[in-house]
Amino acid sequence: MNPLDLTTYRTAIAPADPQAMAVVQHRLDQLTKPQGSLGQLEHLLVRLAGSRGNGLPTVQQPVILLAAADHGVAAAGVSAYPQAVTAQMVQNFLAGGAAINVLAAHTGARLLLVDAGILTPVPDDPRLHRLDIRRGTGNIATQPALARAEAQAAMQAGAALAIQAAADGMDLLLVGEMGIGNTTVAAALTSALTGADVAQTVGRGTGIDATQQQHKRAVVQQALQRVGLASGNRWTGDPLLLLAELGGLELAVLAGAMLAAAAQRIPTLLDGYITTAAALLATELAPHLRDHLLAAHCSAEPGHTLALAALELTAEHHAAPLLHLDLRLGEGSGAALALPLIQQAVRLLHDMATFASAGVATRD
Amino acid sequence: MNPLDLTTYRTAIAPADPQAMAVVQHRLDQLTKPQGSLGQLEHLLVRLAGSRGNGLPTVQQPVILLAAADHGVAAAGVSAYPQAVTAQMVQNFLAGGAAINVLAAHTGARLLLVDAGILTPVPDDPRLHRLDIRRGTGNIATQPALARAEAQAAMQAGAALAIQAAADGMDLLLVGEMGIGNTTVAAALTSALTGADVAQTVGRGTGIDATQQQHKRAVVQQALQRVGLASGNRWTGDPLLLLAELGGLELAVLAGAMLAAAAQRIPTLLDGYITTAAALLATELAPHLRDHLLAAHCSAEPGHTLALAALELTAEHHAAPLLHLDLRLGEGSGAALALPLIQQAVRLLHDMATFASAGVATRD
Repeated sequence: MNPLDLTTYRTAIAPADPQAMAVVQHRLDQLTKPQGSLGQLEHLLVRLAGSRGNGLPTVQQPVILLAAADHGVAAAGVSAYPQAVTAQMVQNFLAGGAAINVLAAHTGARLLLVDAGILTPVPDDPRLHRLDIRRGTGNIATQPALARAEAQAAMQAGAALAIQAAADGMDLLLVGEMGIGNTTVAAALTSALTGADVAQTVGRGTGIDATQQQHKRAVVQQALQRVGLASGNRWTGDPLLLLAELGGLELAVLAGAMLAAAAQRIPTLLDGYITTAAALLATELAPHLRDHLLAAHCSAEPGHTLALAALELTAEHHAAPLLHLDLRLGEGSGAALALPLIQQAVRLLHDMATFASAGVATRD
Repeated sequence: MNPLDLTTYRTAIAPADPQAMAVVQHRLDQLTKPQGSLGQLEHLLVRLAGSRGNGLPTVQQPVILLAAADHGVAAAGVSAYPQAVTAQMVQNFLAGGAAINVLAAHTGARLLLVDAGILTPVPDDPRLHRLDIRRGTGNIATQPALARAEAQAAMQAGAALAIQAAADGMDLLLVGEMGIGNTTVAAALTSALTGADVAQTVGRGTGIDATQQQHKRAVVQQALQRVGLASGNRWTGDPLLLLAELGGLELAVLAGAMLAAAAQRIPTLLDGYITTAAALLATELAPHLRDHLLAAHCSAEPGHTLALAALELTAEHHAAPLLHLDLRLGEGSGAALALPLIQQAVRLLHDMATFASAGVATRD
C-alpha cells in the first residue's frame, strides 16, 4: 500500500484479531485474582490485543502526537481565550511548562510536537515539526476552512509522522491538540457526522458562559447550513471534502496519523472531544479504524459523549472511557493521564502469577 | 497524645486546613491551563492539601498497608473461594505474584504486609508483620467475631504500624486487604453504621450467584439481629464493641492505621468496599478522619457506593472516587491503580508554568 494514498486505508486497516483477544482473555482467567475482577481493565487489555494482533500486548514506547493549529472561526468570538494563545502555548510546550510536558515526563511517553498551521509564526525549533500547508483556516461560518487538497495534505503529513514514529518503535499513539476555537470545529464535525443537533454538540469549551454558548451554537449551525446540512441530517459525501469545509488542520493531521498507525496495528488512545471528532472523521475513510481506538476519558463536553458513542467507545461495547474526571484541558493531557492505567494493566497481564504457578486454589 | 489510646483520636485528628487548600487553589488558577480544566483532579489536590496542611502537597513515599485475616463467617458459605485462599494469597504476596505486587513495583509504593490473623499458619518471613492477637474470628451470624480487647489490640497494632511508617517518611497511606469472607463483614458493618438494608449492602463479592447472594444477605441479617439491630436502625453505641461483634481483624488494623496516619496529617487512599467499611468504623471514633480520606475507586459492590456516600466521598463534596472501572480485586489494587493519577496531579501542581512565567495570555 501507499500510506499517503488515503483511499487505501479502507482495506489496509484490519479489524480486531479475535485470536489475539482470546489469548489475552484466557491468560486473564488464569491469573491469581477473581475472574473478571479487573473490570474494565480486562476489556481494555482484550481490546488492545485485538488491535495489536499478536501475542500478549506491550506498551513500551508510547508517543504523544500533539498537533497545533489556528482556526478562522475564532474571529467569530467562540472561545474564552484570544487566538494568540495557540502560538503562546506551543512556545510553552517547547519550554516544557505545559501540562502535557509534565505528564509526558512522568509517564515516559515521547512528545512529538507539530505546527499544523499556527497563525502567528513560532520561532524555528528542531523539536517542532512544521507543516507548511497553510497558516490558520477560513471562518467556517462563512467559508470553507481549507481547500480539499490542503485537508488531504495535512492528513498525509499526519500519516507520514505516524509511519516514522512506528519505524522508531512506537507501540501506542496518544493524540493531543491545541488550537483556540477547535471545540467549535469538533462540534461542527460531530453534528455533521452523527446528525446530532448543535444543542447536543456545542458545549462550553474552555469556559464560555451561557450567552456565548448560544452564539457558538448559532455559528456551528451556520457552518452546517453553509455545507448544505439541515438539522438532523448526516453527511454522506466525501469525508475529505467535509474535513476541508469544517476544518481544521490539527484534526486532519491527527486523523491521518490514526489511520497510518492502525494500518500497522498500533492503537490510538484518544484524548478529548477534538481528537474524538478527528477519529469520527477518520472512520468515515476506514471503518475498521474503530477497532484500533481506545478512549482515555469522557470529558465534560456533552458532544464528547455523543462522539464516543458514535465510535462505539462505550461500556456496552466493552470499550468504556477509562477516566471520568471532568477534564477539559486538551493537549493530549487526558490520554497521558490514562496512560499509566494502560501501562499498569499490561504489567498485570505479563507479571502476575497464575493459580497453578502460585499454588492458589481456584473457586469452589 | 498516646497514639495507642484510641480515644485520643477524636481530638488529635485536625480537620482540613482551609489555608493550605486556598494556597493550592490559587496556584491551580495561575497554571497555564483553562481554570478548573483538570476537573476532579483539582478537587483532589485541594483535598490533599487540606489533609497535609502545609505548603504544596507532595507524594514521595506512598505506603500500601495490606492486612490479611480470616473470618469465621466463611464457614457459612458466603464466598466463591475456599478459606485456605487467604493464606495462599499471602504466600503469593510474599512471592511477588499477586496484582498488588505488580502495581506496587510499577508505582514505586512500598508494600507493608500484615498477617492480622490468618487461620492457616503462613511460614515466618521477615517481610510479613505478624500480629499474635488471634487466628481467624468467630462466625458473626452466631457469635461475636472478636472480644472487644482483641478488636482494640488489632486497631492499636495498625496505629503502631502507621506511626512507624510515618517515621520512615510515609506521606500517603494506601490500604488493602485480603480475607475470604470479608465482603460479608463489610456489608454487616456498613448496614450497622448507615442503617441501610442488607439488600443494599450485600453484593456478589468475588463472584457468587444470585442464590448465594440471598444466602449471604440472610447471614448478614442474622448477624445484625444478633447485635440487636433491627433493619433500618443504626448502631449508636461503642464503635469498638461493634467492631468486635462484626469483625474482622484486618479491618481493625486498617482502621487503626488510618487514625494514626490522619493524626499526623497523612491522608489515606481507600481501596474497595472493605477498606471503606473500615474507614466508616474509624470515623465513628474520630469524625475528622473524613477530611483525611481519599477514594481511589468505586467498585461494582453496591454497598461500596453507599459507604462512600456516608463518608461524603462523592462528587457533590468535591471528593469523588477517581476511578469507576468495576474493579473487585481487593488487596489495595484499586488504590494502587489510582495512585499514578495522584502522582501526576501533584507533579502538575508543582511543575507546570504559570501564565505569567510562560507569557501566555489569560482569558479575554
